[in-house]
Amino acid sequence: MPYDPGAINLDDKFSKFSKHWSPHIIAQVNDLHIKSVKVQGEFVWHRHEDTDELFLVHKGKLTIKYRDRNVTLGAGELHVIPKGVEHKPIAAEECEILLIEPAGTINTGDAGGELTAHEEPRI
Amino acid sequence: MPYDPGAINLDDKFSKFSKHWSPHIIAQVNDLHIKSVKVQGEFVWHRHEDTDELFLVHKGKLTIKYRDRNVTLGAGELHVIPKGVEHKPIAAEECEILLIEPAGTINTGDAGGELTAHEEPRI
Repeated sequence: MPYDPGAINLDDKFSKFSKHWSPHIIAQVNDLHIKSVKVQGEFVWHRHEDTDELFLVHKGKLTIKYRDRNVTLGAGELHVIPKGVEHKPIAAEECEILLIEPAGTINTGDAGGELTAHEEPRI
Repeated sequence: MPYDPGAINLDDKFSKFSKHWSPHIIAQVNDLHIKSVKVQGEFVWHRHEDTDELFLVHKGKLTIKYRDRNVTLGAGELHVIPKGVEHKPIAAEECEILLIEPAGTINTGDAGGELTAHEEPRI
């Protein structure tokens, strides 16, 4: 990633794309990527065998379904999905979120399928 | 850290303490801690030899001084300080920030001194 000369403004980053379920890399801390993602509708059930995953809601409301419970996040709320635990994100309306996870983490985890992001642009 | 049952609300976490320059651990992603910190005034010049450090401003305005430039962050803006680079955070008014850095990272880095946080409570 090119050396970042200054502030990374989240509203600015979210204004640069519109596709849902498509992570965009906005920063890196050691081996972790900070990604901006817009989501709407239902994602697939999946798990990440090797890593935790942090969700921080910037705008909107996100529900993370687990097999035995739901966690609902509003703006300014975060949640960490433990590694290996199956989950399914859902948003009735468009929702802007930050993801924090290791570089190379695939959005659909073990599930694959048509929502898999084969590229994660740096913006 | 006890298993987190749900949403972690940032405003709620910041309401739980008032001391400046005292990081509080609110979440963990793999080996990284997510810390809430209130700052006001001038911190010490220091560097972290082994890790990058992410600052995300939740409320207020933070200036990160480098030896050759300043980066100023408002609410909803983030910046990553590269490992090994000397920096000095400053906030004229109280500012609420999230830090993301490896567990065990000392707030004053190589500098030490009276602002060193010897404990980082989990809240």
